[in-house]
Amino acid sequence: MAQKLSHKPCDLVLFGTKGDLARRKLIPSLYQLEVAGLLAADTRITGVARNEMTTEEYIELVTTSLERFVKEGVDEEAKTRFVARLNYCQIDMKSPEQYKALCEVVDLENRTMVNYFSTPPSIFGDICSGLNAAGLVVDDTRVVVEKPIGHCLESSKVINDKIAEYFKESQIYRIDHYLGKETVLNLLVLRFANAIFTNNWDHECIDHVQITVAEVVGVEGRWGYYDDAGQMRDMVQNHLLQILSLLAMEPPVDISADSIRDEKLKVLRALRPIDSNNYQEKTVRGQYTSGFVEGKSAPGYLEEEGANTQSTTETFASIRVDIDNWRWAGVPFYLRTGKRMASKGTEIVVHFKDLPHNIFKDTYKSLPANKLLIRLQPDEGVEIHLLNKVPGLGETMELQNTKLDLSFSDTFKNERIADAYERLILEAMLGNQSLFVRRDEVEAAWSWVDGILDAWKGSNEPPRPYAAGSWGPVASIAMLARDEREWDE
Amino acid sequence: MAQKLSHKPCDLVLFGTKGDLARRKLIPSLYQLEVAGLLAADTRITGVARNEMTTEEYIELVTTSLERFVKEGVDEEAKTRFVARLNYCQIDMKSPEQYKALCEVVDLENRTMVNYFSTPPSIFGDICSGLNAAGLVVDDTRVVVEKPIGHCLESSKVINDKIAEYFKESQIYRIDHYLGKETVLNLLVLRFANAIFTNNWDHECIDHVQITVAEVVGVEGRWGYYDDAGQMRDMVQNHLLQILSLLAMEPPVDISADSIRDEKLKVLRALRPIDSNNYQEKTVRGQYTSGFVEGKSAPGYLEEEGANTQSTTETFASIRVDIDNWRWAGVPFYLRTGKRMASKGTEIVVHFKDLPHNIFKDTYKSLPANKLLIRLQPDEGVEIHLLNKVPGLGETMELQNTKLDLSFSDTFKNERIADAYERLILEAMLGNQSLFVRRDEVEAAWSWVDGILDAWKGSNEPPRPYAAGSWGPVASIAMLARDEREWDE
Repeated sequence: MAQKLSHKPCDLVLFGTKGDLARRKLIPSLYQLEVAGLLAADTRITGVARNEMTTEEYIELVTTSLERFVKEGVDEEAKTRFVARLNYCQIDMKSPEQYKALCEVVDLENRTMVNYFSTPPSIFGDICSGLNAAGLVVDDTRVVVEKPIGHCLESSKVINDKIAEYFKESQIYRIDHYLGKETVLNLLVLRFANAIFTNNWDHECIDHVQITVAEVVGVEGRWGYYDDAGQMRDMVQNHLLQILSLLAMEPPVDISADSIRDEKLKVLRALRPIDSNNYQEKTVRGQYTSGFVEGKSAPGYLEEEGANTQSTTETFASIRVDIDNWRWAGVPFYLRTGKRMASKGTEIVVHFKDLPHNIFKDTYKSLPANKLLIRLQPDEGVEIHLLNKVPGLGETMELQNTKLDLSFSDTFKNERIADAYERLILEAMLGNQSLFVRRDEVEAAWSWVDGILDAWKGSNEPPRPYAAGSWGPVASIAMLARDEREWDE
Repeated sequence: MAQKLSHKPCDLVLFGTKGDLARRKLIPSLYQLEVAGLLAADTRITGVARNEMTTEEYIELVTTSLERFVKEGVDEEAKTRFVARLNYCQIDMKSPEQYKALCEVVDLENRTMVNYFSTPPSIFGDICSGLNAAGLVVDDTRVVVEKPIGHCLESSKVINDKIAEYFKESQIYRIDHYLGKETVLNLLVLRFANAIFTNNWDHECIDHVQITVAEVVGVEGRWGYYDDAGQMRDMVQNHLLQILSLLAMEPPVDISADSIRDEKLKVLRALRPIDSNNYQEKTVRGQYTSGFVEGKSAPGYLEEEGANTQSTTETFASIRVDIDNWRWAGVPFYLRTGKRMASKGTEIVVHFKDLPHNIFKDTYKSLPANKLLIRLQPDEGVEIHLLNKVPGLGETMELQNTKLDLSFSDTFKNERIADAYERLILEAMLGNQSLFVRRDEVEAAWSWVDGILDAWKGSNEPPRPYAAGSWGPVASIAMLARDEREWDE
């Protein structure tokens, strides 16, 4: 499938090419771009790690990754084209003088250098200064950095400052892989290409919004890393707040990167602060105990391998978010995310307001309100829940909630759904920052999340227990019940 | 299926019980009410015609109708219960003194008398005076009358006046069988039980509305009758204007008969008049010539059996209707109905307004507007046409019009869709006039339709020819093209 491409060829340099993310996601994604004909003919890919390895051995390593992680099976022809793009460069990333080795493979004149930092953030600064020392930082050089960008506002500033010593904001591509998901992108289309939603998208028409990101997995194997972060830093600060800001933002004037990010930032800055005064009514944090998930028994968080049994890290959070602006006055956004939930899924549910008047009150004291459900995973789709008359005769009219639905997998049957990383790597090569998080967004998000984390810490209350396989602590249900609402299930 | 019924038993008297409508529709519908358990235990059914016949012979006749016209096959048990309710009464309907015979079968004290006039309107007066002479007109006595109520405003008044000599408006049930259709009823629910539509239902959000009632049949076998009426009288004056008024009416305060009919009437009275000054831009009338319908050759209207080859009766009409009120200022409703069309179907398409601003203009110069499609027949359903992102990667974002749909036959799989007559007979027995047309509605509709018919007559222009199997004269397409719009096909 050869496409006519308009973007300049790239030197994609993969720092930490032997790491888990690179092997599972980045290399398979680059291969998929090859299959889709979306790599410019002269684009080169260079792996960087500290190990000694020939390019042949590197190709061997890449091939193994593809065989293991490309679900559809590897196409030999595409693979041949793909591995011909590969180089390997041995660099101890902490030694600035070693980066010169890259000069031999990189062609700054004819290719855009896209540096993907698939490494711990602690060495982002070393990589930047190494690239700089080797004379590889020119106007067109880009860096792609993976989350987490810090552990709090202050530490994020340290990391961002470090990168900013060498790169302008327009050269920095901060990944939140949720922004590469098909359905998250479709939010922009649904909201801004359909008058039927544009006209209904405010406090006049919407009662509240729910965003759920539920995982069934626990933290097997990465207990130490996770315990340091917790669900707020790992999921809310980035993914959930990104979804929230796309849902809540004002219409941008165009789809250029800064038009969109300006509007997202305004939402993040309008989030009503949560602190020691109000965290008890606005948040619930939980930690899973043992239970049954999908029919199998699962240990509690404190019983996982490597656990510190005194940990008070949250594995669940639900939050009532208020957005203090004109559009959303009085419309709560309820966020909920946790590990070891009853089922896996990411869902947005927009609950429209009740009708002002019920003409069917003789038979129905109250009518269920309309809902728009946007399912991000597992089976991407859009549903509108409407009331319809149930066909049939009777002395009274019977109404029923029915759904009009669009399942992506049914509608676009032959389309393979691209992994988020494929899209994000492509966009970084295209030089389009729309789907990447700007520094001020990261900081606005941290600033708000820090308020909650500080309040939790200051309270000295342990997280509330919930059984693995449930929907979190009962307090999460009670939080909505106080507002006379319920979580969608 | 025994339901607990709250309505009083009835004496349903079927005048013209040997006629086509009674045999094809009314008797099978009554039987279906029996099957559904919706006939009160003591309800009786009495056939009236001028022929000499015993009740046994009448039961024979009814059984033949059931066997012929009940598609699902006749259930013996239900039939046994049903025929036990039957009486036959021989009456020459023009002889008032003969109506006394009914007194022997009717029980005014314990049953509500519901008289169904399935006869030509010319004898409605005779039946009324006969019933009166026999002392059968009491407060609770009802009459159900079939269209056509007249041929124009004046003749409708004559018929209505005649009935009004004996019956109050609250006793008169004027049938427009479209009001008994499942999807027409669902219009009330869609519009008034769903905030997502309620909030979008006016000139701010809607660009225009199309209502199409297309038949593939010609006028075989009833040329004389049809030629006297034409498509305006036969379809527009009643069915299309009823659909239009349900779509366009203000929200009623409740679903009581007069609340709904008051609002429908206001729409009919707000229709901008069409007369000799503007009929040329607002209307197209057509008459079919020979052609191919669904792959078979079909004769022209003037070549049908029994045709008067000089006839200028229209078999097609399309009309731009303007509603001069606050809600619909500037929003045309385009009506279109004809015989020998390309395919059979009744459809409402609500076209929402274009977005005020297109943020996807780099890839899409213009975006298709949202549509709500309500299909009344053949396969009842509701569709919302939205723009979605096409899944997949590329240098630009690809959008596609997709539909969220609700097919009644898929959603309510095991529900048999009741015939309109079943519902209407049931409602008449329940004493609920919501689905029947009030006199002032009939007159407002005629008054507006007469304006068009007079303008056509005065013009001396023949109807425009269109080939059987097409969508009507090209002038119909041109009428929308002048407004920069297109018929949905």
